[in-house]
Amino acid sequence: MGALEYVEARRAEILDELIAFASIPSVSTDPAYAKHIAEAAEWVAERMRRAGLEHVTINPTEGHPVVTADWLHAKGAPTILVYGHYDVQPPDPLDKWQSPPFQPQVRNHRLYARGVSDDKGPMLIPIKTAEAFLKTAGKLPINLKLVIEGEEERGSAHLGAFVAANAERLRADFVLSADGAMWRPDEPSITVANRGLAALEFTVTGAGKDLHSGRHGGGVANALHAIATLVASLHDDKNRIAVAGFYDKAKPISNSVRQAVAALPFSEEKYLQSIGAPAGVGEEGYTLLERQWLRPTLELNGMWGGYQGPGTKTVIPTTAGAKITCRLVPGQEPDEIVALVSDHLRKHCPTGVTLDIAPGDHGSIAYAIPDDHPGLALAERVLQEVYGKPSIRVRMGATIPIGLIFREAIGAETVFFSFSTADEDYHAPNEFFRLQRLDDGLKAWIRYWELLGERSADEFLRAS
Amino acid sequence: MGALEYVEARRAEILDELIAFASIPSVSTDPAYAKHIAEAAEWVAERMRRAGLEHVTINPTEGHPVVTADWLHAKGAPTILVYGHYDVQPPDPLDKWQSPPFQPQVRNHRLYARGVSDDKGPMLIPIKTAEAFLKTAGKLPINLKLVIEGEEERGSAHLGAFVAANAERLRADFVLSADGAMWRPDEPSITVANRGLAALEFTVTGAGKDLHSGRHGGGVANALHAIATLVASLHDDKNRIAVAGFYDKAKPISNSVRQAVAALPFSEEKYLQSIGAPAGVGEEGYTLLERQWLRPTLELNGMWGGYQGPGTKTVIPTTAGAKITCRLVPGQEPDEIVALVSDHLRKHCPTGVTLDIAPGDHGSIAYAIPDDHPGLALAERVLQEVYGKPSIRVRMGATIPIGLIFREAIGAETVFFSFSTADEDYHAPNEFFRLQRLDDGLKAWIRYWELLGERSADEFLRAS
Repeated sequence: MGALEYVEARRAEILDELIAFASIPSVSTDPAYAKHIAEAAEWVAERMRRAGLEHVTINPTEGHPVVTADWLHAKGAPTILVYGHYDVQPPDPLDKWQSPPFQPQVRNHRLYARGVSDDKGPMLIPIKTAEAFLKTAGKLPINLKLVIEGEEERGSAHLGAFVAANAERLRADFVLSADGAMWRPDEPSITVANRGLAALEFTVTGAGKDLHSGRHGGGVANALHAIATLVASLHDDKNRIAVAGFYDKAKPISNSVRQAVAALPFSEEKYLQSIGAPAGVGEEGYTLLERQWLRPTLELNGMWGGYQGPGTKTVIPTTAGAKITCRLVPGQEPDEIVALVSDHLRKHCPTGVTLDIAPGDHGSIAYAIPDDHPGLALAERVLQEVYGKPSIRVRMGATIPIGLIFREAIGAETVFFSFSTADEDYHAPNEFFRLQRLDDGLKAWIRYWELLGERSADEFLRAS
Repeated sequence: MGALEYVEARRAEILDELIAFASIPSVSTDPAYAKHIAEAAEWVAERMRRAGLEHVTINPTEGHPVVTADWLHAKGAPTILVYGHYDVQPPDPLDKWQSPPFQPQVRNHRLYARGVSDDKGPMLIPIKTAEAFLKTAGKLPINLKLVIEGEEERGSAHLGAFVAANAERLRADFVLSADGAMWRPDEPSITVANRGLAALEFTVTGAGKDLHSGRHGGGVANALHAIATLVASLHDDKNRIAVAGFYDKAKPISNSVRQAVAALPFSEEKYLQSIGAPAGVGEEGYTLLERQWLRPTLELNGMWGGYQGPGTKTVIPTTAGAKITCRLVPGQEPDEIVALVSDHLRKHCPTGVTLDIAPGDHGSIAYAIPDDHPGLALAERVLQEVYGKPSIRVRMGATIPIGLIFREAIGAETVFFSFSTADEDYHAPNEFFRLQRLDDGLKAWIRYWELLGERSADEFLRAS
């Protein structure tokens, strides 16, 4: 029995494992879920042990632990580092879920639960791939190191320090990432670039306490008016970001990339229909795909203040708050961007309120893999075999900080080889993972390792 | 024993009654509290029965019930209608309360609980006043009708219909209201005018669901940007309301009123200090008191959208919402104002989002009692006796719809004779009622009825 037959014979069992994994509410951004983070790390470690991997370790960090393992007995073969994460986004708003976010449910050939697509489904694939080789051939065709972190949804806050501190142990020819989704369900694709991220949160405070709007209205500042004015000031009427200096260091889009993106099969109308949006909106002078993939953004992720319950409450609230994240392109530094946005907020803060800014710990720089990386070419070959048609290279605008982290700490580039799809509502209610992608992913990862095992390590050392 | 001795001998007992009353969470704006509304109405009726009042009735309406009672055996004496309300504002935000809002606590000669100042403390006073006369003299010096409603905090939505339908039964020479606070703790005052109210709520919706801000950011509208833009558009840079037509029908402030307000002892600096506000903010061209008492306002009372929990959630929220109330001055009609604000929102709604507007049921017109009303002169005489100094006439900007309701339904003007004080944080956390005001109020109401009983009904019939 080969590795592929091994996983094909165990489809139901692998799905059950994913259901058990996705039942753990391992939300990394909210301290209330801390014990489930520990539970998820242990679950991952136990699956690695059962797969037959060696040196399985739950490594503490200043944040959530990193789970590592390896298998290093394929002499002369390339060494890859496989990346994934066991943490998930918060499930809010809970009332929008059709089934509870941590009670996975199969509907219509999809598994619904928070984190199944990002990244529990995709990251289970390499563990099962290793198990398949080790339980059938008793060995892997390549040398393998696994790094499964618990803070991706917090911008991989402590992964960089961990990888740097363990650089020797983690060194590899390149990184094969189980995170970093395909673009669309109808054709295979590989993510070759992503945007960076900068986050901050701020509050404005008017009077020292909530005030009756009849008694006090007209006399003093309303924190909600102030925050609306501030938020509205962040973009101009052409939907450009109005923060002074924001675009200064953003590298312009090269003509070749612009042409490549323009050549992709993409219907703006169909896209808008698919997400139920009445119109495309964004920075003037760029196409929708350019704005989403290649241009920086500043988005409000949350805003609040005053009375939100049913009926009327005639109050002037003392305070209002907002959360912002910016997506960054090459050239932009997260700390600089947070400083520029903070300056803008301070400069535009209306009279009568005080401003408090809390920079996020969530910064990361944009990343792109070199076009001619052999690990990328191999991924394209495998996708062609699995799907029977060529894959396309995409530059979706999400943020996966590991590209930069691994390049800087161990000099390795990252090939994104994930089998989630970008329409699977990760970071939103009703996240799902297509069961077909679980089959495709296992097939592709097994094939990738087989083909990679036929190469010599030297070829890849030169590439990174 | 006279009526005054009766209440003085029962101070502790009356406080215990108020504590029991304030323990009932009779929030009228949130259907979750419905059974406590019924409980509070029954509590009021029972206290009226014990006082010896007649025809005690809990009258159903299309909203919350109105509790009525009377005592009509003072032949030739004037007839007054006493008004109060047993409903309270929502207690949110709960985490700002030093003691739970519905577990009343005495601290520093004050009783802390939601609704003690607005209006449970003040409205208990006339019931205890009636009890004091009936238990000592066996009769009242005047003819009395009581109307205690349960929807004041919802703009007295069904009181108008109720009073109109029962006009014959409720007819009185004038209304003596237990609602309508004094201005400040350091001098006696009488509210002679108040502003009207218009309310609406609106939401903007972008895409059909929450979207990942990396994957989709830059492509489509963000509901939070859109709502901030809309809210910011409602005022201009001079803090004037920028809604076309908003001020058109607002009667200008008369010179005499302007001079009377300017003559009041008022330190803007001390006022701002007392509420912890860094600066006065409002419509250019008017003093702070003019803005609060005599000019219309448009205030946001709540705004929300996206992720509000700890940490970061990189989401573009599908929807955002806001609640608005406007305070109106003579000449402005609530329905017209709601229509003008709605037109403004529709006109300024950005591309890529849809707008839904829900007009509130909370409209009411501004009110002022005629300057020479004899019931007002009598109130001034009593306050002079109780406090040993003249009272001042104030026009605080809150909304008490009953002035218009009683004028229109039974042709009676309203004298506001409340013993709450406007700094007692009603509509905010840590609402309190000064225990001294309970003593003052009982004394004043007893004296008012005594003096009024010496007058003939004819004198007041001419006045209203």
